[in-house]
Order: sequence, then structure tokens, then C-alpha cells
Amino acid sequence: MNLKSEIDLYIDIIEKDLEKILDFKDSFQNTIHESMKYSVFAGGKRIRPILALKTYELVSKDSYDKALPFASAIEMIHTYSLVHDDLPAMDDDDYRRGKPTNHKVYGESVAILAGDALLNLAYETMINSISKSSKNIHGYIEAIKEVGKAAGVSGMIGGQAVDIESNETIISEDQLTFIHNKKTSALIEASIVSGGLLAGGSDAEIKALSDYGKAIGLCFQIRDDILDEIGDNEKLGKNIGSDELNKKLTYLTLHGLDKSIEKTHELCKQAIKSLEIFKKEDVLFFEKFAEYLVYRES
Amino acid sequence: MNLKSEIDLYIDIIEKDLEKILDFKDSFQNTIHESMKYSVFAGGKRIRPILALKTYELVSKDSYDKALPFASAIEMIHTYSLVHDDLPAMDDDDYRRGKPTNHKVYGESVAILAGDALLNLAYETMINSISKSSKNIHGYIEAIKEVGKAAGVSGMIGGQAVDIESNETIISEDQLTFIHNKKTSALIEASIVSGGLLAGGSDAEIKALSDYGKAIGLCFQIRDDILDEIGDNEKLGKNIGSDELNKKLTYLTLHGLDKSIEKTHELCKQAIKSLEIFKKEDVLFFEKFAEYLVYRES
Repeated sequence: MNLKSEIDLYIDIIEKDLEKILDFKDSFQNTIHESMKYSVFAGGKRIRPILALKTYELVSKDSYDKALPFASAIEMIHTYSLVHDDLPAMDDDDYRRGKPTNHKVYGESVAILAGDALLNLAYETMINSISKSSKNIHGYIEAIKEVGKAAGVSGMIGGQAVDIESNETIISEDQLTFIHNKKTSALIEASIVSGGLLAGGSDAEIKALSDYGKAIGLCFQIRDDILDEIGDNEKLGKNIGSDELNKKLTYLTLHGLDKSIEKTHELCKQAIKSLEIFKKEDVLFFEKFAEYLVYRES
Repeated sequence: MNLKSEIDLYIDIIEKDLEKILDFKDSFQNTIHESMKYSVFAGGKRIRPILALKTYELVSKDSYDKALPFASAIEMIHTYSLVHDDLPAMDDDDYRRGKPTNHKVYGESVAILAGDALLNLAYETMINSISKSSKNIHGYIEAIKEVGKAAGVSGMIGGQAVDIESNETIISEDQLTFIHNKKTSALIEASIVSGGLLAGGSDAEIKALSDYGKAIGLCFQIRDDILDEIGDNEKLGKNIGSDELNKKLTYLTLHGLDKSIEKTHELCKQAIKSLEIFKKEDVLFFEKFAEYLVYRES
């Protein structure tokens, strides 16, 4: 299996679905529609939706189709959170992935509403995917609950709220772990777990997926902090060194570069080990994906 | 039936439920939790949740309990939309219902996140109310779809987006109708219809409720415009005349005061007529409620 071409294949599937979902007709709302599409198609890595599709396939032994609305919904939730995080009142970022941020193009009011609309559309998309003939309705409902918890004030929003507050004060390692777990890992874990729930996975399978998700979620975040220190501006599409500039406490500032890199390797091994209950040949993608997160440069 | 005491009774039921939903424990996120509660308990009229509970009772002939999570969820959606609408980048309002707006108390970043969190919590609350033993699961799912459509970019958010844009240009009566329908009526109608869907109402019953909702939704909005012209600052908890000041096109500026008042009476009659398929003695509340909307002073 070639990881790169497998990822590209799934990115294509997800982007086609997002294009369908965001194919609006109504003429009065052109601006907000454009603004929503601008950020959704701004070149994301699609890590979360890929993982949702892949875990659905792993557990169901079936093709990804039924998980597609959830994959797209999770990507819309991720996108809305970036649009709101970039706002002047929040992180005040002018660029993301090498392009002007949403509010820089459409203004703050449209960016706020476009974010709101993407969050709402994500829930509409998940709910609309439940049809009267669905056999695993409670799996769908559990999957929406999982995504909701990860996205909400006990998850991503709570992490961002504490992160914003922490810019003004010195925080503890406990608080940093809380921010990492909530702000980044929670939605990555939920993507993985929701794929398993949609496929009707057993408790043991869901537990294995959840452990894998926790480990690669934290690995992803620490690699982000590492790239902010040693990454390449061009590859990242943003300025590096911003954490140091903002005197932001990160895993790196707490433990240093060597320990941080070591930690990503450790988390990668831990992630791979969690999937032992599945057949070795079925989890090749997940092993390579975890390794990719350790070495990624953007 | 005394309308005032009936309304007060239901406000009490809804506020007790909202207190339970918003009874957070986590200590790192105190600020955002407080901010969410601040706006939810800032003295709203609770029109939407009351209507959700009442239509559930009308159609099911049962007590309101099962509709309570939806009632509270809809009130949280309404509240989040006010928190975001009041932001400096949007309507830039310092006061609402006589109290400083959310961002005035907690700052813009917290207000944005608190709004996001309320929208997300609304969906979590609706989804969590579906239990494995629910008999009418598809009624619940349809009700969430109804609320989602009303709240999203084809509903409330779309209406606000067009309204914000219209501040800068001259708009047509079509656009004004669009804004009214989407920004205010959509969620009021969805509150009413979702109560009926949760109760497993027939197509004819849902149609009747939807017509009632459309009529009182528009009546509510026109009365708002009227109050902005002739209302009492103190009773409203905000400054009147802001529409004129902002050169905002409203039903009133288009048709004048007399025609606008006439229209609210007409809509009230129309609303009452839509409920003819129900027993007269069962819809007394809805008749009086429609009349109250025509004469309300705050």
C-alpha cells in the first residue's frame, strides 16, 4: 500500500462529497455561501474525514459510502473552528495554509456567520444521513453524540476557550494537557470512533479505535508544536516561530525539542499497539498513517 | 385560561431545565460556562420553547416532558444567535433586554465561543434525548432536521447574513420578506412544528402547525418593527428608533404604521384559522398567544 496515493484517493472522495453538500442554489445568500466554500476548499489535509472513512471500512469490511456524510460533517466542523479561531478577536491570523483567512476576504461579520453556518450544516448533514431504512440507527445516533461531545464546550470549544485565556497568564502542565486533549485530539478521536460506531463496532473495537485516536491526536498536536519551531514557512503556509513570539506554552517549551520528538515516536508505537485486536493486514493504513504524523512537514 | 400565568408556568419549567443542562462541573472552563449562562438567563421571553412544549401537548394529549430537551435546545439556538448578532462586527449592540451584551461583559473572543458552544450544546441536547427505548425515533429525527433547517444557512443564519449585507445597500421588498421569513419566522415555526413531530402528529396536523407558525412568526417580526418605532425604551430594555437611525428597511418603513398594525391583526386571524382542524377547546392557548403577539409591548 502506498500511503500517499491512498490519502489522495480519499481526499478526492471527500472533496467531491463536500462539493455536493455545498452546492447552494439560493441567490440572496451568495456571499455567505462563497465564504463557506472558500474555507472548506482552502486545501485542508482532510485528516479527520479520511480517518472516519477508513475506520468505517476497517470495522464494517464494507465500502466507505455510509460514513461519507459524517466524514464531510466532521471536516465542516474542523473548518468552522479554524474560521472562528482566526478572527481578530481570537488568534487574529491573516493567513492560513498560505491563503488570506476568511475574515480577511469576506469581513468579520460574514466569517462569523459562515462559521456558524458550517457548524449547523455539519449537524444537518449527519442527521439527514439517517434514513428510515437505516439498520443501525442507534450507531448513527451514538456517532453524532461522539462528534457533538468532541466539538462542544467539553471538547474543542472548551479547549480553545482555555487556550485563549492562557495567552494572558502562565498555565500549568495540567492545563496544557487539557488544551491539547480538547482542542485537537478530541475531534480526531471522534472521527475515528464515529467511523467504528457507524459500522456497528463491538465495545472492544471502539475502545481500540479510541486509544489509537487519543495517541495520534496528541502526536499530531506535538508535531504541530515542533513544526512551529523547526518547520518550513513555505511548506506550512504560515509563519513559524509564532508560539515563541506569543510566549505560548507548548509541549516543546515545556520539554524541549529532543523529548518532544521522542514523545511523538512513543505515541506512534502506542497508537499502532492499540490496534492489535484487528488483523495485521487490515490495519496497514493506520500504521503508516501514524508514522506519517510523526514525520510530516506540513 | 389566564395566558399570563400559563406563560409564567412554562417559563419556570423551561428555565429549570436550562439550569440543569447548563450545570457544568469542569473547572478550567469557568469563564465560557459563565458566559453561556449569562446570556441564557438574561430574561428572554421564552416564546419558542413555550410553543414547542404547548404544541407537543396539543398533538400528543400528553404532558410536555418528552419535548423539554427540544424546547431548551431551541432556546439555546435563539440565545447563541443573539450573542453573535450583538457582536461589534455584526449589529454592535451594547445592551440587550436592559443588560450589557455578552461581549461587553466577557469580551469578544469568549462571546464568539460561548455562542458556538450554545449552538453545539443545542444539538447535543436534542440528540441525547433520543434513547434506545424511544418509540418515535423518526419523529425525533424529523424534529431535529426541522430545527436544523430553520437555524442554518437556509434559515436564520442566511437571514442574518442578508440583513447584515442589506445595511449597506437598498434592498427590495422580496429581500425584506426573505430576511423576515428566515431570520425570525423560521425558528418560531420550527419550534411549533418540532413539538408536533415529536408527538407523532399527522401530516394535516403538521401542516396546520406550520401555517400557524408562519403567521405568528411574521406577526412577531412586524410587531418588533412597530415597537422599534413606538415602543417604550424601558419596557423593551433597548433604545427605540434604531431602525430609523440605521436607515434599515422594515415592514414599517415600507408600509407605514397603520398598515403594519393592520397586518399584525390579519396575521393573528390567519394563525387562529389554521388551527381549525384541532378541537376549539384545545387551542385556546394558541389563540390567546397569537393575540398577545399583536399587542405585546416588549
